[in-house]
Order: sequence, then C-alpha cells, then structure tokens
Amino acid sequence: MAEQKKMVEAITSMEEDFAKWYTDIVKKAELMDYSSVRGCMIIEPYGWAIWENIRDILDHEFKELGHENVAMPLFIPESLLQKEKDHVEGFAPEVAWVTHGGEEELPERLCVRPTSETLFCDHYKNIIHSWRDLPKLYNQWCSVVRWEKTTRPFLRSVEFYWQEGHTMHATAQEAMEETERMLNVYADFCEKQLAIPVVKGRKTKKEQFAGAEATYTIEALMHDGKALQSGTSHYFGDGFARAFEITYTDKENKPQYPHQTSWGMSTRIIGGIIMTHGDDNGLVLPPAVAPIQVMIIPIAQHKPGVLEKAEELRARLKKICRVRMDDSEQSPGWKFSQYEMKGVPLRLEIGPKDIEKNQCVLVRRDNREKTFVSLDELEAKIPELLEAVRQGMYDKALARREQMTYTAVSLEEMKKTADEKPGFIKAMWCGDQACEEKLKEEAGVSSRCMPFEQEHLSDTCVCCGRPAKTMVYWGKAY
Amino acid sequence: MAEQKKMVEAITSMEEDFAKWYTDIVKKAELMDYSSVRGCMIIEPYGWAIWENIRDILDHEFKELGHENVAMPLFIPESLLQKEKDHVEGFAPEVAWVTHGGEEELPERLCVRPTSETLFCDHYKNIIHSWRDLPKLYNQWCSVVRWEKTTRPFLRSVEFYWQEGHTMHATAQEAMEETERMLNVYADFCEKQLAIPVVKGRKTKKEQFAGAEATYTIEALMHDGKALQSGTSHYFGDGFARAFEITYTDKENKPQYPHQTSWGMSTRIIGGIIMTHGDDNGLVLPPAVAPIQVMIIPIAQHKPGVLEKAEELRARLKKICRVRMDDSEQSPGWKFSQYEMKGVPLRLEIGPKDIEKNQCVLVRRDNREKTFVSLDELEAKIPELLEAVRQGMYDKALARREQMTYTAVSLEEMKKTADEKPGFIKAMWCGDQACEEKLKEEAGVSSRCMPFEQEHLSDTCVCCGRPAKTMVYWGKAY
Repeated sequence: MAEQKKMVEAITSMEEDFAKWYTDIVKKAELMDYSSVRGCMIIEPYGWAIWENIRDILDHEFKELGHENVAMPLFIPESLLQKEKDHVEGFAPEVAWVTHGGEEELPERLCVRPTSETLFCDHYKNIIHSWRDLPKLYNQWCSVVRWEKTTRPFLRSVEFYWQEGHTMHATAQEAMEETERMLNVYADFCEKQLAIPVVKGRKTKKEQFAGAEATYTIEALMHDGKALQSGTSHYFGDGFARAFEITYTDKENKPQYPHQTSWGMSTRIIGGIIMTHGDDNGLVLPPAVAPIQVMIIPIAQHKPGVLEKAEELRARLKKICRVRMDDSEQSPGWKFSQYEMKGVPLRLEIGPKDIEKNQCVLVRRDNREKTFVSLDELEAKIPELLEAVRQGMYDKALARREQMTYTAVSLEEMKKTADEKPGFIKAMWCGDQACEEKLKEEAGVSSRCMPFEQEHLSDTCVCCGRPAKTMVYWGKAY
Repeated sequence: MAEQKKMVEAITSMEEDFAKWYTDIVKKAELMDYSSVRGCMIIEPYGWAIWENIRDILDHEFKELGHENVAMPLFIPESLLQKEKDHVEGFAPEVAWVTHGGEEELPERLCVRPTSETLFCDHYKNIIHSWRDLPKLYNQWCSVVRWEKTTRPFLRSVEFYWQEGHTMHATAQEAMEETERMLNVYADFCEKQLAIPVVKGRKTKKEQFAGAEATYTIEALMHDGKALQSGTSHYFGDGFARAFEITYTDKENKPQYPHQTSWGMSTRIIGGIIMTHGDDNGLVLPPAVAPIQVMIIPIAQHKPGVLEKAEELRARLKKICRVRMDDSEQSPGWKFSQYEMKGVPLRLEIGPKDIEKNQCVLVRRDNREKTFVSLDELEAKIPELLEAVRQGMYDKALARREQMTYTAVSLEEMKKTADEKPGFIKAMWCGDQACEEKLKEEAGVSSRCMPFEQEHLSDTCVCCGRPAKTMVYWGKAY
C-alpha cells in the first residue's frame, strides 16, 4: 500500500531552473524516456497520443487541400545526396552513415535521411513528364535523423518525427502560393488548435534551409523568452529540378522545369506546447490534442452509488470527448495533482453530495476555475468549457508574448535588452549578413524572421547605422 | 491529345508468367515504384492509402484491447542486440550497420532495427517494477530494415512497414493468452476485412522466430499455389526478461520475471491481397481497405445534366463510402479498364438514359455483375453490394484454397504432389527436424504450420515412416 499512497512529487519550479522544470515535466507527465541510443528518445504512450492527435488534425487539413501521403525510403545513397550542392553542404556534416549490410561493406555509403528532398526528386524525375502530371502534392509522416551533438527531449534529438510535404508545380507562381498556403496551415493550426500565438515571416538568407530560395517560418515565444521555430515552408524554385533533370512538357509542347516546395512540422512542437502553456504544476494541454480531455474523479468513491454514477457519466461523455475515469485506490488529492501534472484540460469531480443535487464540479486546468454544472447540461457545457480553456490559454500566451516583445534602435540598446530582458526584440536591419553575425556575436541574438507584418521603427540598421531595409524579429532561440 | 487517348495497357496474364503478372499489377495500379536504394520501395499514394486503411482498422482493434502506441528508436546499439543469444544469431547477419555520425566514427556500431524486442526490453527494464505495472501492452507502427539479398515489391524488401506489438505479463498463462488473442485478431482481420482465408497454427521449431519459445502464424494460399505467411505472434516466456534482467515484485513481495509476447503484420499483406484476389484485368481490392470503394463514371458526359448528376451522386455518397468521380476527358471504356486495374470494388455508371429512368448501373469488380439501382435506393444498396463483393471474394478464395490443398502419406507421394500440383500439402510428421530438412531438399517444401485444426491422415511420418506426432501444412512459400 505504501506504493499507492505516495504523493505526486513536485517538480522544479520554472523560476528556479527552467531547463530542469522542462525535463521534470517531460518525465513526470510520462511523455518520453531516454533510450540507450545517444540522443534518441522513447516516446511513451501519453506523448505519442499527443503526436497522433497532431498528426490526425494536420493530415486531414493536408488531404482536404489535395495532398496525398506516400512513403519514401529511409536511406539516401551518397551520390544522390550530393546532387544539389547547397543541400549536401548543409546536411552532410550531420548525417548517420550506413556502411555495412550484414557482413558486407556496401559499394556506396547510404545516409539515414535527414530530410527527403533528394528522394522525392529522384522519384519525381520518373513520374513527371507532362503538364498533366502537375501539380504533385505529396507528403509523408516519418522519422528523420540528424547527428546533433547536444540534444534535448522533443526540442533537438538525433531522431525525430515529422511530416514532410514535397510538391512540384508547373509555375513559380503556383509553387510560391503553395509555400504560403502551407505556412498558413501551420500558423492556423498553432493558433487555433494548440493555442500558441506565432509570428509569420521569412527567414534571412543566413537562416534559410539548405538549397532553398526562400524559407518561411512561424516563430513562437516560450515562457523563458526564447524563440522556437515551430514550422517551416520552403520555396526551391527550379534548383533541384535542374540538378535532378526533372522536366515536363507544357501545353505548347515545350520542355520546362517544374517549381518545388517543401514544408514540415515535427515533434519539436510538443516541446513548444510544454514551454508555452506549462506551469509549476506540470503540463497544460490544448484540448484539441490532449489524449484525455476530461478526467472524471469520483469523490468518496466507497460510498454507495458514486462509482456507478461516475461510470455512467464516462459512458455518456465518451460520445462527445476523450474522457477517462480514475477509480483507483489513490486519494482524490493525489489524482488531482496527477492529472494536473498530465495537463488534462478539464477535471470532473462527482461525489455523494453532487449526486444528491444532480450536479458535478468541473475544474479548468488552465486557471483552476470551478463550475458547478447540472448533470443534465453536461453535453452542452463541456464543449463550451473546452473552448474556454483553449481561448484562455491563447490569450494568456499572447499577452505574455506582447509583454516580452521589445524594440531596439541602436546596437547598445540591442545588447542591453538582449542581456536584461528575455523575449523578442524588434529592430531594423540593412540586409547585410555581416550585421547578423555581429549581432549574434555581441548581443547573442539571431534573426528569427522578417515578419510579414512590417513596422517602421527607425530609418537605420540597428547594427551598422546604414539605411534599413526590413524590420526583423531577433532573439535567443532553441 | 495523343497522350490522353492512350489505352490502358494490358498486363501479362497470370498463366503466362505469374511473377511478371504480379509486378505488372504493382506498377500499373500505381502501388509502388522502385527507388535508387537497392531493395527499398517507394510506396505511391494509392498503395500507401491501402496501408493507411489497414493501419486504421488494426490500430482500432489493438486499442480496443487496451494496447497503447509508442515510438522506439530507429537504432539498436550492437551490445544491446547481442543480449539475447538466439535473437542476435537470427538477425545479425541481415542488419544494416551505422558506423559514422557526420565525420566521426561511432564508438559503438548501431544497427538499423530489424525488429525491436531488444529496444522494448531495454525500456521495460526501466518501467516495470511492481505487479501493478503489468501488463504492459505496447505497439508501434514503423519501418524496419533487413538486408535481404533478393527482394520483391511488398513481399520481401530491405525496408518494410509494419506494426510490432510487444507486451509483458505477470504470468506465462497471461502471455500465452495474449499470443493467441493477437493471432486471432490477425486471422479475423484477414478473413473478415481482407477476404483472405487463412490457416492458423504453430510454427515448427525450425521455422520459429529468433529467440521465441513458440511462434504462431496465419498462412494464406496465393493464386500460384505458394503460401504466404501473413501475420505472426510470438511467445517468449521469460527468456528476454532474464537476459535483460527485467523483474517485478509480485503481490507477495517476491521478485519475478515477467513473460513476454510480440506480434506483427506488415506491408507484405498488400502482396497477399494482390496474389489472393487479383486477376488478369488487375487488382481486386477488398472494400474494407480500398482507397476508393465506388468510382462514378459519367456516360456521354458532354450531354446536358450528366456531370451535374454525377457530381450530385458523389456528394451524396461521400457520406456512406469512399467515393470518387472521374470527369476527365478519357473515354468511359478507358475509365472502366483503369479502375478495374486499380481494383475499385464498385463502378457506378450514370448516363442520360439512366437519369431519365432515375437509375444507375452498379458493376462489381470481383465478378463484373451488373445491377440497375434506383437512385433513391443507393444509400441502402451500396453497403449491401460492398458486402456482397467481400463475401464473393472470400468464397472464391476459399474454394480455390480447398481445391489446391492435397494430402500425402509417403515421401514419394509428397514429391510427386509438390512437383505437379501447386498448393498446400497436408501430411503427418514425426517432429524430427531432420525430416523437415529432407522434405525441403527432396520435395522442395517447407513446413508452413502445425494447424490448430488437426486431422489424422496416417499413423506414420510422411518422410521417415516412424510414428507421427502432428499433421503439418507443407508448401512452397514466399
């Protein structure tokens, strides 16, 4: 019984040690475990169920927009990876190499895919011939491997899970529209489903994807003031098509190169959920992706009728939400803490007195607000409350981001702000990579994005004082 | 326009060249394409949609039985693979080895998982402590890699997709029940959803999984008389638990080893669908997993009202089945052939005369039976017809299997039957591995399984004449 009565252990507070708070949550909420393979995670059932919910929502959106899922090989022959010069330069230093199959050395090394542009292009070369074959709108759900030196659960791991969309279009215009469309899918998903406000914008040349002509990003601000790149969408022009000799015959019977995009969102976003919404009691999950949306906890469950009523409610609510009931021997207090740790959006308490009054108590995870609800009104009230939780989470995250967004007009101001105030710093930029490098070196910030919503903060570059071209969001980043 | 008017090319007939017929179908029905990586497939949208349907049905069944999905690493350190002696012997010769990460040689080689028993055990060691932690019912959907020398699309590939269930139980009894339960899930899935009749039984020691105490299998018979192992379920006893030092404290506070199972079904089953149901016009898909269940083909689509009516039906039927409408410029004849090639279970034809009569024509893929159906009755009639297709496919496959199942009571008879009549051969066996090897050598057959439904065919072993212990299904196999 000693085992059963143990308390839910407290986690390190955010204030005390943010990094430890983060790893405490991923472990105590049972999202993942460390494996014997350096930098590779074991994603446990609760963590994987979150990813499955993310996958199902996004997959539905992709398919509604005409995308189709495929499965490409896990391996890329070295010669294939080398076909596009910028791409291989970007990825070769961080791939895992397979050199032997069974006892035999392979004639050519294979890398474990770090991303699959080259594989898709190799296939597109075989299947794209005429304008009628376009567009090709493919996507795959898989894991990829990048040999990172320093790793952190979900945020940066050697193996991680993602979806990668790879599309081919007849014209540059169409491909650019696709790039923008998919960035918007990600932004809407983050804001409307995950309650994470994001800044949409374009990456500077220095920060763009290896081989891309343009990289677009959504950037979210974490609790500790660091930025998280949460989804990216790339426009490749016809660069890969030329390297892979992919051509199609247009309506006038002339050969043309198609134009390409790719876009991805990964398990990293689970780190983003934790660090946007979590608090010192644990995880706070957006209802859309919470494996359990409502946890029913019977009070004084040994009393006659309580467990029966709790079970009756579970069976009823199963039709409208993801619900569980915990009838274990643990105390209600233990259960409250446990499911707060796990970030369950709503707790439903039901005891003998509630049953007498034909009511129950619903407690929101995000602000602990209690509501007494008639048992007759549950089907109407629960969706309402889940939506209120989502809205509450979004508003809180947005208010924090606004509070933690600063501006700087001089290098001194940039250094001081970066040093003293964690968050985004908006500042003007001349467009010169030398200034980006200097800001990184002297203020420790990188350019997060050139936001679509531009503001005019000053006439001159925050770094060099020459005429400014663009407003940029700067910050420290994961 | 020349491109548009091309005919659907005929495929090689089954009679003429079965292997070529098979590869013609996988290519012409656009299930897969070959990649630049030896033995690794590209699964194209239509093929992957079949796998997604298989996954969704099985995943639902697994979850209903209390299983949870997780994600284990892609890599296994060499030392971990070596912990269980039989297991490493079975798999080490056919794994891909990662030796370098980026520019650096790894301190220990990693193999790309060929199966994940060792990874699950390594994790279970950390999370199983008390009887309260049992059972653990985990599953994962992923790809695995086995360095096969000879490969064929879906049937044997270097990389293939599967689910692997790995469970831990307090007692041998419970683990054995799980092994049997999951075999039954596979058998029911094959028979009821895929319309593939299977023989359930146990593998001989020679054929069992590396490290298992018992392997159970479902064996299906393909069109050409070869057997296809279509799903397996393994009982491990506490062998891995001992090797990995996984113990739990029982209710009497004593340390115990838990008992283990694993079970898997792979993309190989898509090969099984092709070779069980396909014909010389192409693929024939079981409705449960067909990406398109009903294809609407407008007749004389340039005539007023036809396309509008076809689209109206599509919108209506979308609510009850997976439906598409083809309004391309191709001729109806071309479309008929095309969707027969793709194995669409039902074709719905609608033309001006049908519209006048408020009816349409429904044509079954499995037997080309035509039915005129009133447009008012479609919602009732289509599910009925889909079920009739499934039943028709199953009956046909079962009749063929029965026709192609023989018995033998002497070595001579076995050799003659194996030589002349493709199919299963039922024969008695003494239990000695030497006889299995001799039958393989002299008759070219392997033991497929010792079926649960035993028959007494003779008193003596078909091979050596000593007293028989078991009836065995023998055959040539994929």
